[in-house]
Amino acid sequence: MSGVLKKDPVERLKKAIGKEKVSTSLAQRKLYSYDATPIPVERKVPKAVLFPESHEDVVRIVEVCYEENVPIFPRGAGSGLTGGAVPTDDGGVVVSFERMTRFSVDPDNATAVVEPGVITADFQSYVERLGLFYPPDPSSFKYSTIGGNIAENAGGPRCLKYGVTREYVLGITAVIKEGKVIRTGNPVLKDVAGYDITKFFVGSEGTLGIITEAVLKLIPKPQARATALAVFDDLETVGRAVTKIMTSGIFPSALEFMDRDAIRAVEEFKPVGLPKDAEALLLIEVDGTKTSVKEQIEQVKAILEDMGVEVRIASDRKEAEKLWTARKNLGPALGNLRSGKINEDIVFPRIYLSEALPKLREIARKYDLLMAVFGHIGDGNLHVNFLYDKKNREEEERAERAVDEVFELALSYQGSITGEHGVGLTKRKFLRWQFGDVGYEILRGIKLLFDPKNLFNPGKVVEI
Amino acid sequence: MSGVLKKDPVERLKKAIGKEKVSTSLAQRKLYSYDATPIPVERKVPKAVLFPESHEDVVRIVEVCYEENVPIFPRGAGSGLTGGAVPTDDGGVVVSFERMTRFSVDPDNATAVVEPGVITADFQSYVERLGLFYPPDPSSFKYSTIGGNIAENAGGPRCLKYGVTREYVLGITAVIKEGKVIRTGNPVLKDVAGYDITKFFVGSEGTLGIITEAVLKLIPKPQARATALAVFDDLETVGRAVTKIMTSGIFPSALEFMDRDAIRAVEEFKPVGLPKDAEALLLIEVDGTKTSVKEQIEQVKAILEDMGVEVRIASDRKEAEKLWTARKNLGPALGNLRSGKINEDIVFPRIYLSEALPKLREIARKYDLLMAVFGHIGDGNLHVNFLYDKKNREEEERAERAVDEVFELALSYQGSITGEHGVGLTKRKFLRWQFGDVGYEILRGIKLLFDPKNLFNPGKVVEI
Repeated sequence: MSGVLKKDPVERLKKAIGKEKVSTSLAQRKLYSYDATPIPVERKVPKAVLFPESHEDVVRIVEVCYEENVPIFPRGAGSGLTGGAVPTDDGGVVVSFERMTRFSVDPDNATAVVEPGVITADFQSYVERLGLFYPPDPSSFKYSTIGGNIAENAGGPRCLKYGVTREYVLGITAVIKEGKVIRTGNPVLKDVAGYDITKFFVGSEGTLGIITEAVLKLIPKPQARATALAVFDDLETVGRAVTKIMTSGIFPSALEFMDRDAIRAVEEFKPVGLPKDAEALLLIEVDGTKTSVKEQIEQVKAILEDMGVEVRIASDRKEAEKLWTARKNLGPALGNLRSGKINEDIVFPRIYLSEALPKLREIARKYDLLMAVFGHIGDGNLHVNFLYDKKNREEEERAERAVDEVFELALSYQGSITGEHGVGLTKRKFLRWQFGDVGYEILRGIKLLFDPKNLFNPGKVVEI
Repeated sequence: MSGVLKKDPVERLKKAIGKEKVSTSLAQRKLYSYDATPIPVERKVPKAVLFPESHEDVVRIVEVCYEENVPIFPRGAGSGLTGGAVPTDDGGVVVSFERMTRFSVDPDNATAVVEPGVITADFQSYVERLGLFYPPDPSSFKYSTIGGNIAENAGGPRCLKYGVTREYVLGITAVIKEGKVIRTGNPVLKDVAGYDITKFFVGSEGTLGIITEAVLKLIPKPQARATALAVFDDLETVGRAVTKIMTSGIFPSALEFMDRDAIRAVEEFKPVGLPKDAEALLLIEVDGTKTSVKEQIEQVKAILEDMGVEVRIASDRKEAEKLWTARKNLGPALGNLRSGKINEDIVFPRIYLSEALPKLREIARKYDLLMAVFGHIGDGNLHVNFLYDKKNREEEERAERAVDEVFELALSYQGSITGEHGVGLTKRKFLRWQFGDVGYEILRGIKLLFDPKNLFNPGKVVEI
């Protein structure tokens, strides 16, 4: 300002947290400018990548960045699909949590305190050994982090019965504007004191501040599971079947859908004996006590057979696992068909699914694209995959235009543009539409309360 | 302002929504200045009581009130216990939703759209006939409204397994500042687009705006339930028993606790044969398929008997109902012991319960008060009741001072000042303590975004 030479912010950061926690190598900076987003997004190489090791490090980082007006891009495992972890400013820094991986579990209280860098699968297997259960199961769970899951409010098949990540976050510690610290919630399962800032942070994609610790809720681990596969000749029956099951007093722990192209892709990739001539499949899982899972899956079978639907109950754990592996292989299987794949996770009210599915196929036809649809049909959350040749820029553009129409279709049915993946960069333009002007202005206002300089993950979710 | 005679706002309101929807009778205005709060609160008689019949009426009310600077006090059934529905300004109006009682259920989508005045029990029995289930079960459910339940984020025994009201609200339509309308969420079970304004409104106690419609989530209705009663000689074993059950793979649908004074009160009020010499009781309910509830309750029995605890399984529905009636009678039973009763709903992390219970008894001794404790021990939510003689102002004051110490105790154990009843007027002073200065300023900032003139339920939750 007044002629004083300004110190390089990266130098200040090195001093603040220790230079061994700051990387400025070009290779690393480039590496950390990517996430798993399948479509091209604006992407800048950050000035540095920071590796805080404690809450205090994060406070210091934010203090410096807030003073120096340096944008902060927090990052979990970088497995996000909407650009949430992509830096959009080459004057910014990426903050990676890979060194903040401590957690402690209190089995008597059925709660855990976790740092953001904990890998979801590691945490899950740990608590399961204690007879406890942390349900959120994004397909990335083997490498994605709890911090990233909270930022995106991640979900998966089991969320039909157990709810998304938000339902398991009881409290957070977060660093907001100027390095101030906000602690919300408690290690208790019920708390209605004041506005619920905790749940508000979940899904905010790092735009309000940086979570340095979360208190998570754990529930009893179910004793057993059972799986069945139902084969459909038409899409309309699928919708009716889902309703029948969900009003029969059985609460499936998963209800997964695959359309004909998804089935074929799996069978071409790693055959597990799925019926390639079926119009659609449902994979149904129930959980509970050992006796009850048998009873429940038999009831599901009876309901579906009454409707003329063919049902196969997995005879043992091995067969069940084979079916679930087929489901989990869908991603790579589709990737195998073409070099490029856009996977969008829209949501329809369940009632409109049988109407919406043919319309999705129309969109694919209109843009002359190969499309496969699968997803969590119990909660109306579908993954619509457009496949294309990455080297064919014209086809890629068609795929992007098709995705826009898919979003419009979802919104026209009172659905949502994202059930699991978040808004990030790729869905920003649709958010104003979903919220309306009044709602959008409130979102912006809240963002600025936490982050008046717009330094936390700028450019994501809301536009300032 | 410039000499123009200002019209009486009540006259403007009559013109805006029709005079048959506006009452200015003193009797009615006095009646609507009360809720069920057991301790004295500041209470003003409003200028008028309004009975909107539609969303549009509410928009008009807010438009007029915002122009005329008239405070708005929304009201469900007035069954709240923290003064949330009490008018604090005699220039204000009460807005009662008793004429907005429409709802529609979509069984295929497992969602419902409700107006705020719908009685919770009416709605619940309606959806249960369709094989669906709306779990939130505050003890007031027979007369409290869905709108009030959302405003307070109500809970009850079943919330241990099924979560509180918040988890069942998928979307809202709300009227905020100047009569602007905000619509959030969708009739879908998963939506991670943007910050979650929906969940944020739940529990905001009418301070951000007025909800005119909510989209609710419904789940499959369990086929059967089973109940057991466990008798304890010491408090320490209760805590261990809860942990054992909750890590055994069984997820009870309720786990209710009564201490010795609560047991005695029930037995003196309407005897059901509870063991009067027990130190504490647990009432345990499981749900699921018919076979599985038998299996689960037998497993619970075996776990507890292993610990030397006496367990009685209700042999049929009638016996189970008798036990649950005893639980539900606790309120009136305690009211029967003394003319005055303060019931506070604090929350402790479950692990600290056996430590906290003796400390609660110490507080009762210190202030020389009769105290009974019961509540939802599975989630650490306890109802601490101090009983006193209403005519004895000195004793009443002792009870109020005792309550303050109870809140301090809960906070000192990382607990919460309210698990179900909300902050309202009576717990305001503790909120800043629970949130800290940084958090409290954010709460205030958010309140002012929705309500810059502080006209929506002013004086509740946060102080402006």
